[in-house]
Amino acid sequence: MGDAIRVLVLGTGQMGSGIVRLVLAKQGLKFAGAYSRRVARSGLDVGRAIGLTHDLGVLVGTDLVDMVERVRPQVAIQATCSRVADAVGEIRVMVRHGVPVISIAEQMAYPTYSSPTLAEQLHRDAREHGVAIVGTGINPGFVLDLLITTLTAVCADIRSISATRVNDLASYGPTVLASQGVGLSPAAFEAGLVKGTVVGHIGFPESIYLIAGAVGWEIERIEEQRQAIIAEVGRETPFVTVQPGQVAGCLHTAVAYQRGQPVITLSHPQQVHPQLEGIETGDSIEIDGSPTVRLAGRPEIPGGEATCALAVNMIPRILSAPPGLHTVMDLPVPAAMLADARRMGSAARGGPA
Amino acid sequence: MGDAIRVLVLGTGQMGSGIVRLVLAKQGLKFAGAYSRRVARSGLDVGRAIGLTHDLGVLVGTDLVDMVERVRPQVAIQATCSRVADAVGEIRVMVRHGVPVISIAEQMAYPTYSSPTLAEQLHRDAREHGVAIVGTGINPGFVLDLLITTLTAVCADIRSISATRVNDLASYGPTVLASQGVGLSPAAFEAGLVKGTVVGHIGFPESIYLIAGAVGWEIERIEEQRQAIIAEVGRETPFVTVQPGQVAGCLHTAVAYQRGQPVITLSHPQQVHPQLEGIETGDSIEIDGSPTVRLAGRPEIPGGEATCALAVNMIPRILSAPPGLHTVMDLPVPAAMLADARRMGSAARGGPA
Repeated sequence: MGDAIRVLVLGTGQMGSGIVRLVLAKQGLKFAGAYSRRVARSGLDVGRAIGLTHDLGVLVGTDLVDMVERVRPQVAIQATCSRVADAVGEIRVMVRHGVPVISIAEQMAYPTYSSPTLAEQLHRDAREHGVAIVGTGINPGFVLDLLITTLTAVCADIRSISATRVNDLASYGPTVLASQGVGLSPAAFEAGLVKGTVVGHIGFPESIYLIAGAVGWEIERIEEQRQAIIAEVGRETPFVTVQPGQVAGCLHTAVAYQRGQPVITLSHPQQVHPQLEGIETGDSIEIDGSPTVRLAGRPEIPGGEATCALAVNMIPRILSAPPGLHTVMDLPVPAAMLADARRMGSAARGGPA
Repeated sequence: MGDAIRVLVLGTGQMGSGIVRLVLAKQGLKFAGAYSRRVARSGLDVGRAIGLTHDLGVLVGTDLVDMVERVRPQVAIQATCSRVADAVGEIRVMVRHGVPVISIAEQMAYPTYSSPTLAEQLHRDAREHGVAIVGTGINPGFVLDLLITTLTAVCADIRSISATRVNDLASYGPTVLASQGVGLSPAAFEAGLVKGTVVGHIGFPESIYLIAGAVGWEIERIEEQRQAIIAEVGRETPFVTVQPGQVAGCLHTAVAYQRGQPVITLSHPQQVHPQLEGIETGDSIEIDGSPTVRLAGRPEIPGGEATCALAVNMIPRILSAPPGLHTVMDLPVPAAMLADARRMGSAARGGPA
């Protein structure tokens, strides 16, 4: 085995911090540095930036090109944003330096939907520089697309797919909470929807196109609905306090149609502490087909923890992927990385290959 | 799009028949012929052989080399046996004629476990002839390995994995029923275990090595237990009648150890009509880790239907796989094939690739 795999983490928010902690904990990975978009974080010790009680002796960087040239990472994990248009600048820096990228930006799960031209350019750039790019995360990227798609494999035919993810946002940071309107008045929530500051879940079209692409459905339109979940009792997290009558979260649903028929219905009510009002969190999938398949789990797979794990567990997959822009559907099934990262990947997998 | 993909089906038992029916139903596939090991079936119309009410105008073949040379299939699905040693002769014929093979022989899910030398030879032969081989099926191949592995991807760490599949064998044919001892007296069941005629589930070590290989665990030993499930009420299928006091099935469990600790526990009680005694069928998975993940579905994913679907849905994956012997863990996630088979595969998948 050669030296440990040098991993650069972009982002020092809730997700970036969790990813750095995981990279530090994993055998065979070497934490190579953390980049922040916030200039105020420049020169801060990464340990302090991510909430550890000790310094790591590595400073947060805010000049990405300088960092990449200095630490020469072998893979980068991006946790700085949600949208392709916002992600693409950093990804391009990586690609031009020959560094494969795992992004947890929601739209990067299926960038062709929101940004077909940028996706096409990224794909070309990635192939030209011989590196692979993939978007992952709990959702989009796993519960409402990859897991559903995997389950479809047992079906000879499918009439429709529906899935619901009832989660708890209590562990999330202020950016995510604001995007769901948590803590707003109902009127401010409605105004936020119009202004685009309240967005609900980012990723329904991405999940739908991931599923549809895998099974061969042609989606003709997607209808999305967002409505406020009003708290009846007070709900509190480290980042927000919700009074009764205020918004605890956003019930967001999407329905995808093929030939006039609804074929995929995804529902994702996101709120803080739903259990305070007797609502159980959980993931459930129903595939109405031949055969019909139902699978459910309670509580929901915790989004924050899972997104960090998925990003880090993707490292062996992206390092052995062909150059280009991929989705999780294009790569072998992901898996936990419980041995030295340098032993994972094809050599550690089944069969004599 | 070119001509439909010519599919040869090996086997005209319960599974082979289901696979032929699916191949006939799928756009973009052309049923190229059915091979049977039973010489008595030679010249029988395939429609009659698989239980259709009409002839198909295609006769069951019993000379495999002749069939392959005559119909020139582009892919073969093997549903003739359970063990690698028994499967390898037919697979070699396919490989030497440049035909990729999807096998539902249980041991082919991870052939390196039972038959490392044969697996190595198959891998070499496959690469030499430029074709891919993969084993699939509901179990091993899906519920107790691929689905579990996919779920591990959200975990940063895992202490142990346990899963139970409670199924109903009522839809299975006489070969499967006999292998579980269904209809025997308890004494005959015990004698069958000793003689090797009652085998329980075939595939626990294969599932365990698939999971372990994907997550990087090194398994040091596997302990298996088989015990008779005694019927308290009569249970009946088209192929067997079980009196009270007789054996309705086999409760088979396997525990895999790493460094002295049980890390994977799989349990698979297989019987006919368990609901007659108030037992609900279902699949359940629990991953004790960070985070802990639980997922369950009732009833169980029906094994026969699912195995046929998995085999046919694997066609686009095997046609675009690199040459060699693969496991389902090496290929992109499987998915239902709901469009023309010729449009499936990488071109129809996510991203601009």
